Amino acid sequence: MKPVTDPMQLFRHQRAVREFADRPVEDETIRQVLQAAVHAPSGSNSQPWKFIVVRDAAVRAELDRIYAEVHASTTPGVMSKAPVVIVPCVKVPERTGVVGFQTGASIYPACQNLMLAARLLGLGTVLTTSHRQKNDEVKALLGVPETWDTAALIPLGWPDRSYGPNHRPPLDEAMCLDRFAE
Amino acid sequence: MKPVTDPMQLFRHQRAVREFADRPVEDETIRQVLQAAVHAPSGSNSQPWKFIVVRDAAVRAELDRIYAEVHASTTPGVMSKAPVVIVPCVKVPERTGVVGFQTGASIYPACQNLMLAARLLGLGTVLTTSHRQKNDEVKALLGVPETWDTAALIPLGWPDRSYGPNHRPPLDEAMCLDRFAE
Repeated sequence: MKPVTDPMQLFRHQRAVREFADRPVEDETIRQVLQAAVHAPSGSNSQPWKFIVVRDAAVRAELDRIYAEVHASTTPGVMSKAPVVIVPCVKVPERTGVVGFQTGASIYPACQNLMLAARLLGLGTVLTTSHRQKNDEVKALLGVPETWDTAALIPLGWPDRSYGPNHRPPLDEAMCLDRFAE
Repeated sequence: MKPVTDPMQLFRHQRAVREFADRPVEDETIRQVLQAAVHAPSGSNSQPWKFIVVRDAAVRAELDRIYAEVHASTTPGVMSKAPVVIVPCVKVPERTGVVGFQTGASIYPACQNLMLAARLLGLGTVLTTSHRQKNDEVKALLGVPETWDTAALIPLGWPDRSYGPNHRPPLDEAMCLDRFAE
């Protein structure tokens, strides 16, 4: 994919990429992408995140095995095809002892920054969360302690081909004024 | 705030803005910002969102009243000071009947797109979720049905002043390789 230079065009050029070229991603590139992630907002600016950069092929193969059990994909092996899988983790709120809907407000904006920064550079990603149906297995595999939780598996790599913009229905279907309206 | 033109600089220039200039935000500007939101990814690309654009001063005053009950802010009245409050809503998953952590992956990336697009234009926002402690009151006020839920209250307006970049600890504190490490 071509890098994006007009920032307002960035959003409509994010695509779910599940097929990758056989080309490595440099450490410095990954750092650029993660730097964008950590600049995201979070509840009370607590920055309750940790990003596991999974390069190890054996670990990615295990992620694929687990992912295949819960997600019938048209593109199996996506965690292995990508040279890197990023696993954003979030601190479990002490008050409740469990991640809830609002906890997502402290990690998914960071995931989105990560994916947008990747797209800016011409890298492809896809946000997947199905692994959470086998979350205990994933946490054991990656050594994630009880006080933390996994938010997503994000394969990252150079896309195998070009992708056009994404398409959406007319904006009016998604907005309403002052009160909710279907 | 100055508009951002270098897209890689965007992430470090997002700030939590809670004080606004007495200057209206045009409908077309709001549409630009919401357009960015609806281009975000969501689970199975289901786009399960609706954005309530609250301009009505009486409704914003009510949001302030509710918000003040749950959030001791150093800047009270933020929902009234902003000329617009955006309330992103998400469809409640039918399978579980309740929004969970993963539901956040289908709405908070869109919230982040919205806030980044606002920042590109020089607008200020802040992501707030504390209202959810009085969510029933907010839903009643805005007429949000049982099958939908509120994800955030996002005040939107022209900032009262300039803001520098945001600051973060060294990236290495937030990343680890192949396995989780504190």
